[in-house]
Amino acid sequence: MGIKINVERTSAPKEKPEISQLGFGKFFTDHMFIMDYDSGEGWHHPRIVPYQQILMDPAAKVFHYGQTVFEGMKAYKTPDGRILMFRPYKNLQRLNRSNTRLSIPSLDEGLVMEALKQLIKVDEDWIPSELGTSLYIRPFVIATQATLGVSPSEKYHFMIILSPVGSYYEEGINPVSIYVESEYVRAVTGGVGNAKTGGNYAAGLKAQQEATEKGYSQVLWLDGVHRKYIEEVGSMNVFFKIGNKVVTPALNGSILEGVTRDSVIRVLRHWNIEVEEKTISIDELVAAYRSGTLEEAFGTGTAAVISPIGELNWQGDKLSLNGGRTGPLASKVYDFLTGVQRGTVEDPFGWIEKV
Amino acid sequence: MGIKINVERTSAPKEKPEISQLGFGKFFTDHMFIMDYDSGEGWHHPRIVPYQQILMDPAAKVFHYGQTVFEGMKAYKTPDGRILMFRPYKNLQRLNRSNTRLSIPSLDEGLVMEALKQLIKVDEDWIPSELGTSLYIRPFVIATQATLGVSPSEKYHFMIILSPVGSYYEEGINPVSIYVESEYVRAVTGGVGNAKTGGNYAAGLKAQQEATEKGYSQVLWLDGVHRKYIEEVGSMNVFFKIGNKVVTPALNGSILEGVTRDSVIRVLRHWNIEVEEKTISIDELVAAYRSGTLEEAFGTGTAAVISPIGELNWQGDKLSLNGGRTGPLASKVYDFLTGVQRGTVEDPFGWIEKV
Repeated sequence: MGIKINVERTSAPKEKPEISQLGFGKFFTDHMFIMDYDSGEGWHHPRIVPYQQILMDPAAKVFHYGQTVFEGMKAYKTPDGRILMFRPYKNLQRLNRSNTRLSIPSLDEGLVMEALKQLIKVDEDWIPSELGTSLYIRPFVIATQATLGVSPSEKYHFMIILSPVGSYYEEGINPVSIYVESEYVRAVTGGVGNAKTGGNYAAGLKAQQEATEKGYSQVLWLDGVHRKYIEEVGSMNVFFKIGNKVVTPALNGSILEGVTRDSVIRVLRHWNIEVEEKTISIDELVAAYRSGTLEEAFGTGTAAVISPIGELNWQGDKLSLNGGRTGPLASKVYDFLTGVQRGTVEDPFGWIEKV
Repeated sequence: MGIKINVERTSAPKEKPEISQLGFGKFFTDHMFIMDYDSGEGWHHPRIVPYQQILMDPAAKVFHYGQTVFEGMKAYKTPDGRILMFRPYKNLQRLNRSNTRLSIPSLDEGLVMEALKQLIKVDEDWIPSELGTSLYIRPFVIATQATLGVSPSEKYHFMIILSPVGSYYEEGINPVSIYVESEYVRAVTGGVGNAKTGGNYAAGLKAQQEATEKGYSQVLWLDGVHRKYIEEVGSMNVFFKIGNKVVTPALNGSILEGVTRDSVIRVLRHWNIEVEEKTISIDELVAAYRSGTLEEAFGTGTAAVISPIGELNWQGDKLSLNGGRTGPLASKVYDFLTGVQRGTVEDPFGWIEKV
């Protein structure tokens, strides 16, 4: 591509973890990508270096004012040794939308794509190939200027780190139990709910912690204005199969525009299944359950791909979905998407990017 | 106090900045306090060390999920050389309330107070004594565990850094112009608006940036549900003098419980001025302006203490307050509070803590 990325290879490669130990985001590969920004030079000095701790001034704005954005993507190794990425440009476009919302200077998507590919090649041996595993890719920006005035930073790091992962949930692709949250709110229209920024996740920790204490994996978020419209599940988008139709909350400015969400919608329509993006209230959902038409529910996101919901707790009422088992539609979408991602199912959409 | 805080003094003291260069949060003293947390040992290893960069793993949760809280306080040097702090326990209590909201383990307030005093004494020579200057104190917590699952961190740093400061605004205590924000939202009830956490400030950057481009210093935030009730101004609480009464938005869960806010309310009541904490709409405020009863408006916060508002821009209408000059009440409150803080005015409330 003509972009010069300096590569410094490690002289002390780490021991790779056993597949059974992987979990999610616990181990990191031997190298990372880093690039700097200051208001004079713009983004500069792109480089691949050994994975290492970075030096930060205690006054760096990211520590105080949360000026940070990130993305999540995956790379897969096929049985015949190719390396595949899934719709990476969608993620890089969203990264820049998040940057704009957080007053962070835009990144050159071509350069970031090139950096991604070079970094993945350097750490190719770290990509696991077993079913259910992948290389999780975490690009992120942090504000590094060391001043305490509340204003956009004049200095940043953009980094990419890589983590070989197994399933996001300890349950694997088995159904999770979800607590419908009625006290805490994740985001509101006019806020930063549609940007992939740290504060959204920090805002959700307490609700998640309380749900965990009650025996639930995640919460189902309701909107912050009326406290009745469904937004997301944990840090995933959410889908419901009601009768012959699939519904998912419409993009309203406070929910994340998920790449997996978009992919699921397109796959379902490709199969001639009706999908409606609409405002859906918890009352409407419970009514569908009571009438027997709420057949399945599942979350979608890069980390878990498809996460079937086996139970919803709404104000103490436990709604068991599809008998607490993974539903046929969730299974079918999961098999198709992960098949495309792993190169074992034909990709009719042109979503796969070879590294 | 019986708490052992190890002190390592710098061997290379920095040159101190000229008073005229100070600004806000641009220079830091020679030392800092740091203490670690992990889920096995709890908070441990409290120490004062030379101010220095810290090593952070790129996967540290603070970079990705914004799990961080902070406080802002000030210390003053009196003409006779005493060092005074203003209501520090209020800030430490709020720090722990923020910790609870962000799923961060509580800090021992007695230990933190002791650390604060020892650190300030070590860097005593850095406290400026000129009128309008002070030593700004920034305690903060950052999540340091290097894993990418979205869950509360099992490791943290608690740090205190110190910065000699002049005025927060370049305008000094002169009135600022404020843009009433109708597109972006800072926080909503059920969210983290009442916690002092990075995400709230990150969420405000874009609105502030756009206001600056229009020639305004800060924005006036309206509530996220009805988009009409006044919440805060920039990162300060806000007061309005309407006729013979002073009104300020009631604590509703989405605005910060400011220590200066509480102090202003108590000072005004001490002076037998009626103060009402209530829900106040922008329409009500504009109506008071039109009828000639909106006499003054000012923001309150630790950094600026009192920040008079000279103009409000509401949907293009420019409302000039007190002829664009600092009002008599704002002046009186500013003189009293800064006098108490600097030890030149008697403290009838027992707010001053000697270091």
